[in-house]
Amino acid sequence: AQLALERDYEAQRELETRYRVLMEANPSALLIVSMSTGRIVDLNGSATTLIGATRGELIDAPVANELEGRRKGEFIDALAKLAGSDLQNSLDLTIRRSKRKVAVSATLFRAAGDRLLLCRLGQPEAMRPKADDMS
Amino acid sequence: AQLALERDYEAQRELETRYRVLMEANPSALLIVSMSTGRIVDLNGSATTLIGATRGELIDAPVANELEGRRKGEFIDALAKLAGSDLQNSLDLTIRRSKRKVAVSATLFRAAGDRLLLCRLGQPEAMRPKADDMS
Repeated sequence: AQLALERDYEAQRELETRYRVLMEANPSALLIVSMSTGRIVDLNGSATTLIGATRGELIDAPVANELEGRRKGEFIDALAKLAGSDLQNSLDLTIRRSKRKVAVSATLFRAAGDRLLLCRLGQPEAMRPKADDMS
Repeated sequence: AQLALERDYEAQRELETRYRVLMEANPSALLIVSMSTGRIVDLNGSATTLIGATRGELIDAPVANELEGRRKGEFIDALAKLAGSDLQNSLDLTIRRSKRKVAVSATLFRAAGDRLLLCRLGQPEAMRPKADDMS
């Protein structure tokens, strides 16, 4: 039984490593937000840089303290609604600390009895270079 | 102790779900390859589609059966070397089943005593549309 526990521990560690590598290897800034608490469960290095705070400040922080929509606090439900639709829509939000605008798209999933949102923070449509400008 | 085990089990399940969502939400075709066995440890849906086989056929299959470089079997070491350099280099390989060319970039990491390669399969340089063609 001790051996089985050690194997479980090893498997858990390996999964954690793979998960972390996937978070950091993704070119987008990523946030995982709990729908039940509205707090940031995890985020990658690109997201900490974009938001302009340390990982320690952001983990477990209410996402509404860091991002704001037109009306306070409603954007988590709006993101969940977006995530539920088939379209690749995004919601334009503002990073509170830097006042930068970001386009947030989301994937909704269930884990451990909670609903979580995987949010990708990208450049808003209006700020993207047009094809003509890319030469 | 039973409760602690159940909590561990829940945590493991949640991590698995987050890991799977991250794999599938990544826009690139992703493969995780074991350096010690040369086999495919995991891959996402984009990768199964690109390679043109089922997930069942590809999990645990030798990656050299699915991708080929100029000289047989050497590309895993070449990818590891690429991954070790700071440059965002990629290696042009051919998918055996479809004969399509792909540009493979890799991140090397250690997990559970093995070295693993997270490989991203993208369009080779020569096939990418030039900026001028993007209007």
